[in-house]
Amino acid sequence: MQAEIINTGSELLLGLVQNTHLAWLAAEFAPLGISVERQVCVPDGPPVREALEQALDRADVVIVTGGLGPTSDDITRDAAAELLGRPLETSEEILRALRERFALRNLPMTANNERQALVPLGAQALKNHFGSAPGLYFPPATLTPHRARHLILLPGPPRELHPMMRESVLPLLRSVRDDNKEVECRIYRMTGIGESLVETRVGAAIEKRGDINVGYCARPSQVDFRLIGPSRALDEVEPDILAEVGEWIYSRGDTLEQSVVALLRSQKLTLAVAESCTGGAVADLITDVPGASEIFLAGLVTYANTAKQSLLSVPAKLLEKHGAVSEPVAAAMAEGARRASGSQLALSTTGIAGPGGGSTEKPVGTVFIGLAAQDHPTVVHRHFFPVDRATFKNMATSAAMDLLRRHLQGLPLNAGTESRNSR
Amino acid sequence: MQAEIINTGSELLLGLVQNTHLAWLAAEFAPLGISVERQVCVPDGPPVREALEQALDRADVVIVTGGLGPTSDDITRDAAAELLGRPLETSEEILRALRERFALRNLPMTANNERQALVPLGAQALKNHFGSAPGLYFPPATLTPHRARHLILLPGPPRELHPMMRESVLPLLRSVRDDNKEVECRIYRMTGIGESLVETRVGAAIEKRGDINVGYCARPSQVDFRLIGPSRALDEVEPDILAEVGEWIYSRGDTLEQSVVALLRSQKLTLAVAESCTGGAVADLITDVPGASEIFLAGLVTYANTAKQSLLSVPAKLLEKHGAVSEPVAAAMAEGARRASGSQLALSTTGIAGPGGGSTEKPVGTVFIGLAAQDHPTVVHRHFFPVDRATFKNMATSAAMDLLRRHLQGLPLNAGTESRNSR
Repeated sequence: MQAEIINTGSELLLGLVQNTHLAWLAAEFAPLGISVERQVCVPDGPPVREALEQALDRADVVIVTGGLGPTSDDITRDAAAELLGRPLETSEEILRALRERFALRNLPMTANNERQALVPLGAQALKNHFGSAPGLYFPPATLTPHRARHLILLPGPPRELHPMMRESVLPLLRSVRDDNKEVECRIYRMTGIGESLVETRVGAAIEKRGDINVGYCARPSQVDFRLIGPSRALDEVEPDILAEVGEWIYSRGDTLEQSVVALLRSQKLTLAVAESCTGGAVADLITDVPGASEIFLAGLVTYANTAKQSLLSVPAKLLEKHGAVSEPVAAAMAEGARRASGSQLALSTTGIAGPGGGSTEKPVGTVFIGLAAQDHPTVVHRHFFPVDRATFKNMATSAAMDLLRRHLQGLPLNAGTESRNSR
Repeated sequence: MQAEIINTGSELLLGLVQNTHLAWLAAEFAPLGISVERQVCVPDGPPVREALEQALDRADVVIVTGGLGPTSDDITRDAAAELLGRPLETSEEILRALRERFALRNLPMTANNERQALVPLGAQALKNHFGSAPGLYFPPATLTPHRARHLILLPGPPRELHPMMRESVLPLLRSVRDDNKEVECRIYRMTGIGESLVETRVGAAIEKRGDINVGYCARPSQVDFRLIGPSRALDEVEPDILAEVGEWIYSRGDTLEQSVVALLRSQKLTLAVAESCTGGAVADLITDVPGASEIFLAGLVTYANTAKQSLLSVPAKLLEKHGAVSEPVAAAMAEGARRASGSQLALSTTGIAGPGGGSTEKPVGTVFIGLAAQDHPTVVHRHFFPVDRATFKNMATSAAMDLLRRHLQGLPLNAGTESRNSR
């Protein structure tokens, strides 16, 4: 099946918000054998109707994102209803849910919000647990005489769209697709290795087979290696993948932080972190995982040197002699975090995020990552991430999480990095 | 001037690569008064020509990215030349540069690379210092009878496209733009208020004028209220905006964290944070801002109650009597962070992020936010954000940052929230 995506929203065309819909939707569609053939981004207003009309005549599945909210520039619902000749009717159920939503938050529900309860005749409302605007599904009967068999309108914010796709839209499309073409999608999530090395070690050979579609989705410090094909073929290539790049694979689906929290919980170990250059990003990531409170005791974001001394008992002499960004200070920070929190394990980060503060010996991008454990000498790895400040924090955070993962899985700690044990 | 962007490349439609072109190009165009009216992503092949033909008849400036390389699927150059009836001629200069490039890298130059030296008659080649494919600029004379005045073909990789835009394309467009039709774009960034309330209070009236384009971009806890129109019209409506929603506006461009860090720097004040439910997200956000180290001393992520006692000196009795998620504990955390770090100001967060851990009295989504200052009684606000865990952390973080912003700007601290002073 062929799909087209229409993204509406002036904020996208103004460059205020990065449009991530295409990459996300394409990856979700791929395992169902649905390929995205075109994506267009139009401003809120008449171009939405024009884009919709063209897409309905070209594709089997049309997804429109955005323009379902309460304000006057939200016109997707009306444009679709008018184009397809479907009168809008107020859903009492949605109206009730909207009123409850506002009451729960102690907020006044202004009249413009009631537009969100309008449903075109013959369309189905799709529940939105994370926002006020429901989605809409137009089944084949409502789309005649157009080519399209499925029209889906979804809200623009990814935190609303993503769960609605997974809960409502994908199950619906799965139930109507042509099952002869069934394929499986397997994703190997890796960190600490680049996509070109993954391709050289295993990807290129798998691609040559011809029966497996190979994809790489790279983000800073992470690669998702994606294979789509018949289950039998995927089983055949798996031993090679594990042999060649197995130690970099942290999961088949979970995020790195979910994997690490699960390992800590299953091994009944507690963690603390002492962060300088990552500024709280490691603690933030770990506490994104529900249940993190079982294993995470404390994070100490010691940005100032005085805080490193008072909160982590890093000796002033050590800071003077080696500087805050150094191997001995990273080790002392991790050990100090263990002592201060009473945890069994502790991670530390100290580095130069930039843009200022670098030197010849320790340029911007230098970072030391420490791991203190009760039953193991403290380990410090040095990395170099000469990138912008946000990416630096991101990469240093991933490196810290991956050091802990390798420790918890009993893997060599220093694969592919410049590193050594401290003391 | 109106622009359209055509992105070519199957890797974009497969979701293998995030398409960042629209946001980047739109932000570069905005200061020139060029607005992007449409962006489309099509696969390599015949759809490129079709998309190009439509865009040339609709926009003043058309930018095509991708499809200029050496391989058989790179067809953008040929499609444009054929559509505009411009024969291709080999540029000896480009050919020489290509040969030098390959020689420098000790690589054989295969015959297909010579296609990159082809220039359509009347077009100008644009130098590419970071890749082999030059860009192409088609001036007005080559575009008759289409509406478009400028057609620009650029390579797809951002590391090649970005410098070419800044070195060649933007100076060129700056020299030819029509200054009569200039409009201004003003963005009022707000937090603590919903988009529907912004529309009701000011947006609807501005829209009725007819000469200002009004837009809303909502993210959790934040609204960007965007006006595009003649500067004179924007000046006219500004007093109303400030009177009606002024106290929720934290900036005209900076992020909330940039605004807060700038206020702290200009007032020469230092900050510490004590976080429970936000798990490091407040510290992480503050340290995203370059120069945060001047004002940010320490963050204490006290997830466990023992950590609240040992690191922040929250009395055990207080925790027992009121629970960790309570107004007195939030106050004690903020005061403890001030004492432990020696900072002048401190923020605290304690709440129930969920999915587990709620009660009737304190359901999932409850959060207390504290602010301790040297010259002010400690303030605690109670909020309720019954959303998913990630959004909860995000909203609680914004609320904490906004409480500090209001304090630093001398605004009422409790507008629109359920709140009271503690002790």
